[in-house]
Amino acid sequence: MNQDTICAIATANGVGAIGIIRISGPEAFKIAAKIFEGKNLEEAKTHTIHYGYIVDGKSQVKSEKSQEEREKIIDDRQIEEIQNQTLFEAGETINPQLSTVNQTEVIDEVMVSVFKAPKTFTAEDSVEISFHGSPHIAKKILEVLVKNGARLAKAGEFTMRAFMNGRIDLAQAESIADLIASENEASRKVALNQLKGGITNEISILRNDLLNFTSLIELELDFGEEDVEFADRTAMNKLLLNLRHKLSALIESFQYGNALKNGVEVAIIGKPNAGKSTLLNALLKEERAIVSEIAGTTRDTIEEVIHLKGTAFRFVDTAGLRETTDIIEKIGVTKAKEKIASAKVLLYLYDEHDSTTEEVIAFVKEFHREDLKIVLVHNKVDLTNDETLNEFDATLTLELFPDYCDELLRISAKDQTGIEAVKTVLIDYVENLKDQESNVIITNQRHFDALQKSLQSVLQVEEAVSSGIHTELLAYELRNALEQLGEISGEFTNDEVLGNIFSKFCIGK
Amino acid sequence: MNQDTICAIATANGVGAIGIIRISGPEAFKIAAKIFEGKNLEEAKTHTIHYGYIVDGKSQVKSEKSQEEREKIIDDRQIEEIQNQTLFEAGETINPQLSTVNQTEVIDEVMVSVFKAPKTFTAEDSVEISFHGSPHIAKKILEVLVKNGARLAKAGEFTMRAFMNGRIDLAQAESIADLIASENEASRKVALNQLKGGITNEISILRNDLLNFTSLIELELDFGEEDVEFADRTAMNKLLLNLRHKLSALIESFQYGNALKNGVEVAIIGKPNAGKSTLLNALLKEERAIVSEIAGTTRDTIEEVIHLKGTAFRFVDTAGLRETTDIIEKIGVTKAKEKIASAKVLLYLYDEHDSTTEEVIAFVKEFHREDLKIVLVHNKVDLTNDETLNEFDATLTLELFPDYCDELLRISAKDQTGIEAVKTVLIDYVENLKDQESNVIITNQRHFDALQKSLQSVLQVEEAVSSGIHTELLAYELRNALEQLGEISGEFTNDEVLGNIFSKFCIGK
Repeated sequence: MNQDTICAIATANGVGAIGIIRISGPEAFKIAAKIFEGKNLEEAKTHTIHYGYIVDGKSQVKSEKSQEEREKIIDDRQIEEIQNQTLFEAGETINPQLSTVNQTEVIDEVMVSVFKAPKTFTAEDSVEISFHGSPHIAKKILEVLVKNGARLAKAGEFTMRAFMNGRIDLAQAESIADLIASENEASRKVALNQLKGGITNEISILRNDLLNFTSLIELELDFGEEDVEFADRTAMNKLLLNLRHKLSALIESFQYGNALKNGVEVAIIGKPNAGKSTLLNALLKEERAIVSEIAGTTRDTIEEVIHLKGTAFRFVDTAGLRETTDIIEKIGVTKAKEKIASAKVLLYLYDEHDSTTEEVIAFVKEFHREDLKIVLVHNKVDLTNDETLNEFDATLTLELFPDYCDELLRISAKDQTGIEAVKTVLIDYVENLKDQESNVIITNQRHFDALQKSLQSVLQVEEAVSSGIHTELLAYELRNALEQLGEISGEFTNDEVLGNIFSKFCIGK
Repeated sequence: MNQDTICAIATANGVGAIGIIRISGPEAFKIAAKIFEGKNLEEAKTHTIHYGYIVDGKSQVKSEKSQEEREKIIDDRQIEEIQNQTLFEAGETINPQLSTVNQTEVIDEVMVSVFKAPKTFTAEDSVEISFHGSPHIAKKILEVLVKNGARLAKAGEFTMRAFMNGRIDLAQAESIADLIASENEASRKVALNQLKGGITNEISILRNDLLNFTSLIELELDFGEEDVEFADRTAMNKLLLNLRHKLSALIESFQYGNALKNGVEVAIIGKPNAGKSTLLNALLKEERAIVSEIAGTTRDTIEEVIHLKGTAFRFVDTAGLRETTDIIEKIGVTKAKEKIASAKVLLYLYDEHDSTTEEVIAFVKEFHREDLKIVLVHNKVDLTNDETLNEFDATLTLELFPDYCDELLRISAKDQTGIEAVKTVLIDYVENLKDQESNVIITNQRHFDALQKSLQSVLQVEEAVSSGIHTELLAYELRNALEQLGEISGEFTNDEVLGNIFSKFCIGK
């Protein structure tokens, strides 16, 4: 249990009707009571809300506190922290005299929520102050809290406490960050599922089984001289096989999970005037209500995003694509490769007036990649008769299907015909990533890495079992595997990893 | 009382740890209960907080009244039991089947606060949903609320309801918007004071007295034939005089209130190389921690702002001033006038090497204005001996004091000497605006206008009394004055004015 009491703004930056400041820790009620004029919070029932005022200087006035307490001042570092956290537009210093003021100053009219340990988010005593949502008022309240003994929370510190206090496991903690960051249905659902314990449940069952075997193996070590076998090797092999399958399935689900969480990058490529921007506009137009430009804070490109069936399809750097109408010819193959490198789907646009089959075939063969789905999109089909179209496309399919690609669509981007088919291809791409074997989906790179390490260690155990290795070494491999599996839920995770995970949270969570 | 139930996001735009959605109206509990899986909100006590899930599709299941429903109710009870035993905020897994029962879709894990009328902000039944602060999740929850009968609130509609339902008066409602928008100590304090009823209290006491006299005057009308005087004319004159003084004081406080609320515009003017930007930098440097550029959303210029004793001093368009080193000579007097027109304080910088006393005198006389404080700032005093300085400045003071200006400061912007004196002049300017007669400060243009109209009507009543006008006309003038006074608190305000006031609020307030 933490000894100090933390506080932070929990609502988004900027001006809103309501802002929330959170306090958590053993002194949460005591500190809140010192700055709250209203109900005595230390006597309030859990999960109740109280009206009153946040005041500065109440403690000095009401109770004759010690000299030490009265002289408690905010040091410069904390002032700086408050300022950094609250991101003011109009900067303003904390009045240094405030700390020695003897009269009560009213900061704001508020509602205060009381949560008593252990049935709280952090499993600690917690208080939430709902104030008039001005960043300036937020700063003032934080000042008074710090002055009265609270400390400004670090990013993710509330959730970290929830984890440390055993309220949630690490995967659940991570899912809270994912939930807050979720921008579409798919990512929201996956995060919520994980918050409910999805991934951890699935793994912990298998891990427990493995733990049983490990105990038996270790028991064998105690009877080392007698050459007994408590652990049924056949059953253990079966479990290991099962574990390997589960881990593989989870690992494979990452591609799908990643698509759900981060969206799918799509590149539209073609010669000048192939109709790239017309196609993009047609896709955008149909989805006009749900299209947005994301100037990502975490991503460093400007994208156009289309949400189809809850999944985000990100047309990366299409602004650039639009300006340079033909990146392949003008900027060269190297530049095109860069554009395509991070894409998962490539829509190659051509029309038979302006292209030769040789060109198209050469392009597809050049850019073909195991993890890139190339879709041939025959544009401007309204301008040509069927015979010409068929002849052209027959050559392509003959040469390219199924080794280099397996989809050919005919559209008229201008007339907006065939656009539905393009969308279907995109949706199907994501659907096909779904692994039928696992109903839990991995979306987190850390889990992916931990699962791969776990799989490695399970393979090593299998190897060890089949090679008839010494029991002591087998026990060692088993312990290693258990540790790897435990990393996902945070049972075996070092401080550095934890710090890394929680530092990516927002302040106040 | 409103018939419909409204909902809106109440927290600032963007991603935060926590987001809040507010619901208010007669169906608030019914609608919230339809989408909440957890405690039965219709049975919850007021000012309590409940853990659970926001779900879509719960209502359809319930309305079917089938075997399924009965089973579902049992499920709900069981779930409630589970929750009562392990009532947690986040991360707790409740019955996993819940999420898949009859295609109910879980939107988010939330905390729901229940507020029963009339002791709520709007004086209506209200619910607040605290969710994982993703804008996407906010949207989903609002969708489900609307689907179940709530309506999206208009800007300021919650506060408007609070006003309409008699919870607060109009001036208090306005102060809530001011509080949310407050960017510094001065504006926060003034808004908070007003929220506590400051201005309305002061006026309503006088208004009540006037109402008494009006009733007596109207009683006289009933006895019209008998020529009686119920209203003591001397006492009434005294009240009217008192009222006139109070109104005048409040009106005069507007200049101060406006300075507190919106800050004070300061222009730094001088010839090229007079040291304008050096002075500004010196002012900024001393306050380095608290300086920022505001690209205002409501203001249309870029400013540098310095906060001194809680008041913002806005150096308007100094970026422009810096580029054009001498706006008076290069852009001409017309342009300079524009710059100076909105300023309240003008710092005129000169040094005697580069200026003649005639120039300075001509400038000050040209730009002298009743509501502009011009301060002569003799810069670069480190480069000259005292005798020269004294001679130069003596001529200026002789010619200009006290009719055109009354302050002359000597500084060296480069050496940062005399900067404190410049600040003191700025602070004193604001202090001097303070009206000793009124401890309530007007900050709102609408109040200012209403007070001026009130003053006019009071003057007319005084006129009417002194001219021995017919009682019937006097009663009319009195009613008019009462109505004008009532406009401030919203007792006599038409819908258009109200709509205008509340449309400027943010959504969710």
